[in-house]
Amino acid sequence: MILGITMGDAAGIGPEIIVGAWREMIRQTQVQAVVYGHPEILQRAALLRHTNAVITEIQSVDEILPKGEASFSDVLTIPCIRCGVESVTQVPCGTVDARSGDAAYQAIIRAIDDAKAGMIAAVVTAPIHKNAINLAGYHYPGHTEIFAERCGVDDFAMMLYLGCGDNICSKDGLAVVHVTLHTAMKNIFGQITIESVLAKAKLINDFMQRMIGLSGRQPRIGVCSLNPHAGEDGLFGTEEMHIIRPAVQQAVAVGLNIAGPFPADAIMVDAQKGMFDAVVAMFHDQGHIALKLLGMHRAVNMTLGLPIIRTSVAHGTAFDKAWQGIAETGSMLEAFRVATKLALSR
Amino acid sequence: MILGITMGDAAGIGPEIIVGAWREMIRQTQVQAVVYGHPEILQRAALLRHTNAVITEIQSVDEILPKGEASFSDVLTIPCIRCGVESVTQVPCGTVDARSGDAAYQAIIRAIDDAKAGMIAAVVTAPIHKNAINLAGYHYPGHTEIFAERCGVDDFAMMLYLGCGDNICSKDGLAVVHVTLHTAMKNIFGQITIESVLAKAKLINDFMQRMIGLSGRQPRIGVCSLNPHAGEDGLFGTEEMHIIRPAVQQAVAVGLNIAGPFPADAIMVDAQKGMFDAVVAMFHDQGHIALKLLGMHRAVNMTLGLPIIRTSVAHGTAFDKAWQGIAETGSMLEAFRVATKLALSR
Repeated sequence: MILGITMGDAAGIGPEIIVGAWREMIRQTQVQAVVYGHPEILQRAALLRHTNAVITEIQSVDEILPKGEASFSDVLTIPCIRCGVESVTQVPCGTVDARSGDAAYQAIIRAIDDAKAGMIAAVVTAPIHKNAINLAGYHYPGHTEIFAERCGVDDFAMMLYLGCGDNICSKDGLAVVHVTLHTAMKNIFGQITIESVLAKAKLINDFMQRMIGLSGRQPRIGVCSLNPHAGEDGLFGTEEMHIIRPAVQQAVAVGLNIAGPFPADAIMVDAQKGMFDAVVAMFHDQGHIALKLLGMHRAVNMTLGLPIIRTSVAHGTAFDKAWQGIAETGSMLEAFRVATKLALSR
Repeated sequence: MILGITMGDAAGIGPEIIVGAWREMIRQTQVQAVVYGHPEILQRAALLRHTNAVITEIQSVDEILPKGEASFSDVLTIPCIRCGVESVTQVPCGTVDARSGDAAYQAIIRAIDDAKAGMIAAVVTAPIHKNAINLAGYHYPGHTEIFAERCGVDDFAMMLYLGCGDNICSKDGLAVVHVTLHTAMKNIFGQITIESVLAKAKLINDFMQRMIGLSGRQPRIGVCSLNPHAGEDGLFGTEEMHIIRPAVQQAVAVGLNIAGPFPADAIMVDAQKGMFDAVVAMFHDQGHIALKLLGMHRAVNMTLGLPIIRTSVAHGTAFDKAWQGIAETGSMLEAFRVATKLALSR
């Protein structure tokens, strides 16, 4: 099994976290991997991180032969498929540049196409810079929308996941899916419908079912309120009564182990204690405030509802820390591990 | 110096956390205290908690003489001023009842009036149940509004505070104030104005200045965005540009050490690390999700902008846990300590 990793923005921390996490990613998962990016930039990152990994340029995933053969991916060999304009090697670190935006976008597209063709089992993405992508002429708010469009999917969702450990008590980790995401708060009200809440609940149920695996246990899902104190019986808003509660009832009717709506501040404490495997959040900050406090450095970002598996680091390009050799690799390692687990559960 | 403590709802955990925390409250602060409630209920709570504290009924705070005299408040003597209907002693534990609502309300009013008269230095409140208060005919969403109305104040704010320790790195703790609070999310947009953001920033600056004390250091205040990613330069909303940023600029102009707006998920991580002393949140869940995850069991709730000092536990009546002798007293102790510190800084 081969996983694809996109290099992200060359001026950010993507290249160094891939190279820095490489040995552990391969050692812990025992799968093979390929990077979609630029071999010269990866080689620079290897020097920066003082690893003795060798970057081997390949033209296609087909060249990654089974282990034991010549050009395999192992803890010391990083196969790389060259993507995007050659001048990306001249982009100064820590800057927004159309060339790195273009290269990052081309890498993503190539990886998606390889995944759709079944050549790689999953795509793990390093961070891109929205402005660089836009300067290069690709107008997307982020990875999620690029993946959804390229896969022809309308019904998708962004999820954050934290594995067991640190502040997360459940051994299967905690997942949070967002009913609304990259939109002004004024616009969320039209997007929170019985259908959208139900759809996100089903997506996260499917995900956690695969993470829990063969034990047969059903994921326990909690649903956030939109309003403070779950609306206080209509005193602070009616979306709980008219939208969220009916959606939860419909989800129960189709067999989900789901409850809510609960006040969002209470549910996050309960989830952290292990009382829920997954939480459906109504908007961006509900989920992000909680998961970033609980473990920003090891959170995994994922797009649910795609025909392919895509996981990502949960942080950004961190231009202020890039190419100093100090970027933490925990989130990349976790994103790779989750992608592997999902790919094996297929 | 004498602090007043209101007993809260008799059917909830108020009585037992007051009695349970009493010894440490008095020992650590070296001040005196009086409970506004019902002596018989407090005596039951003392039996439940296996303390040998004695409840001494008094008619007025005047009866609490300086230490060394007859009826003083000490680690073993709990002076109590009887408030509300006598039949409150018959309310079953863990139930919503107009009698306990009435008694809780009467205790609050008496304490506020004593504080306004300068007879007590601060009011520390145990939790009330909104439905019980309403059944008794008092239509308020919570303590905050009762205090504001009784004090004749329009410009007030609810704040949460966590002292140093556990997850809070700054030695002066972390305070979060809310620009909007107990209202439907649909209604927050009209309430978030340059004036309201500026007013809350000034209130929390005054509070933290007193908590920091004489060191002269200025409180460092961070301001949350309303929209995800701080609005992404207008892509996800314009309140950051048109309201929050101008409010921050005006606050800087009047001498506050303040910055923002920042994405709410990022600012909470920075605040936890000690980069801010105080955070201005735009709505209930932004502040509450963060502080409950960081230390729900020891958070203090406070009303800013009153002519008197009022602190409170940050949790509710917990009817499901009440009168079992298991309720945690940490938040009550912290609320008492913060009230003492503020009273001494006057």
